[in-house]
Amino acid sequence: MEEKEISQAVIGRLPRYFRYLGELKDQGVERISSRDLSGLMKVTASQIRQDFNNFGGFGQQGYGYNVEYLYNEIGKILGLDRQHNFIIIGAGNLGRALGNYLNFERRGFIFRGMFDCNPDLAGTKVRDVSVMPMEEMERFIAENDIDIAVLTIPKTGAVSVAERLVQTGIRAIWNFAHVDLNVPEGIQVENVHLSDSLMKLSYNIRRGEKLETGEGSL
Amino acid sequence: MEEKEISQAVIGRLPRYFRYLGELKDQGVERISSRDLSGLMKVTASQIRQDFNNFGGFGQQGYGYNVEYLYNEIGKILGLDRQHNFIIIGAGNLGRALGNYLNFERRGFIFRGMFDCNPDLAGTKVRDVSVMPMEEMERFIAENDIDIAVLTIPKTGAVSVAERLVQTGIRAIWNFAHVDLNVPEGIQVENVHLSDSLMKLSYNIRRGEKLETGEGSL
Repeated sequence: MEEKEISQAVIGRLPRYFRYLGELKDQGVERISSRDLSGLMKVTASQIRQDFNNFGGFGQQGYGYNVEYLYNEIGKILGLDRQHNFIIIGAGNLGRALGNYLNFERRGFIFRGMFDCNPDLAGTKVRDVSVMPMEEMERFIAENDIDIAVLTIPKTGAVSVAERLVQTGIRAIWNFAHVDLNVPEGIQVENVHLSDSLMKLSYNIRRGEKLETGEGSL
Repeated sequence: MEEKEISQAVIGRLPRYFRYLGELKDQGVERISSRDLSGLMKVTASQIRQDFNNFGGFGQQGYGYNVEYLYNEIGKILGLDRQHNFIIIGAGNLGRALGNYLNFERRGFIFRGMFDCNPDLAGTKVRDVSVMPMEEMERFIAENDIDIAVLTIPKTGAVSVAERLVQTGIRAIWNFAHVDLNVPEGIQVENVHLSDSLMKLSYNIRRGEKLETGEGSL
């Protein structure tokens, strides 16, 4: 199947389709119309058809979508048909939370190693993975076919660690540090800036109150 | 100042402006042109001007933006000029990570209480906050002026806890459970679906490889 250039907005919606289709599949649903999927996901049926058209459609008019086929195809597009090895840098609470999250493994993301600059943490474990000192990071990446590094360290250290990661030829950084990283093209970065998300929530609280009281022209 | 209806895309960019302006302010920078801000943030100057025009502009043509004024105004728009009290439901690693994150406090988000259905955790502490049993949640919310509940529990429990939260009249839910919540209008929900973010990264890794090898028509 030929693929067109797809906008990040569409890509951002694919995991959610994948999640819903996975649940339908687990419930034994074989086919679903875009209208039913629309009701379930609370997006318009036209949005769904438009999104799926980016990948060749997946459906026959009037017959609905084959759930398992669609689930597998979206999985392939998302690169979930292969294994990704990842390490976590930063063995604090957040790093440990991510290391313990078994759901990642079910999607093919395998937790291989954990690093921290605090020598007191060396040797402590998260599941069956031992925390290693930062000096061993480069060697470990090279020897263990690591393609994703998860950054759960404060922003002060994140920039220099990212530079070291770039040198190793890592493919992707999943960045939880509260700073934007500059990396060469070809290295993928996905940021999870938790404070930003909380501020967006705070904006919407304020806006919701203004709507209720009729203040402003919102 | 009158406010127009602002798209969630613009709202989503405001925290990042706020973050960069905060850093400029801390460095003692008083004024900045949209061109310099553009170079720093790697978005176009025209995007910046367009975004700020949603809020009346903030700048005088040719003089650039007053950093501190802009920082404060965006802070007000984001609702950061007031205090928000939050509780965390789920005292696992992720809940503890969020409870320990002091940066939230600096933005006016105050961590007040933590709840878990595991009785073994009752009484354990995260900073100076004790974990309480779930039965006490409603009373605690009512007595402590809580406006945000952070959900860091597995998706199986999240829907019913969200229903209980709705009954309390909570203003907002910051949802880390891997499920979409249905809540009445007027209650704000911000989802952080970590698996979705990881899948997006996986897509971009695969796409990056196809670009390198020239495979497909990407």
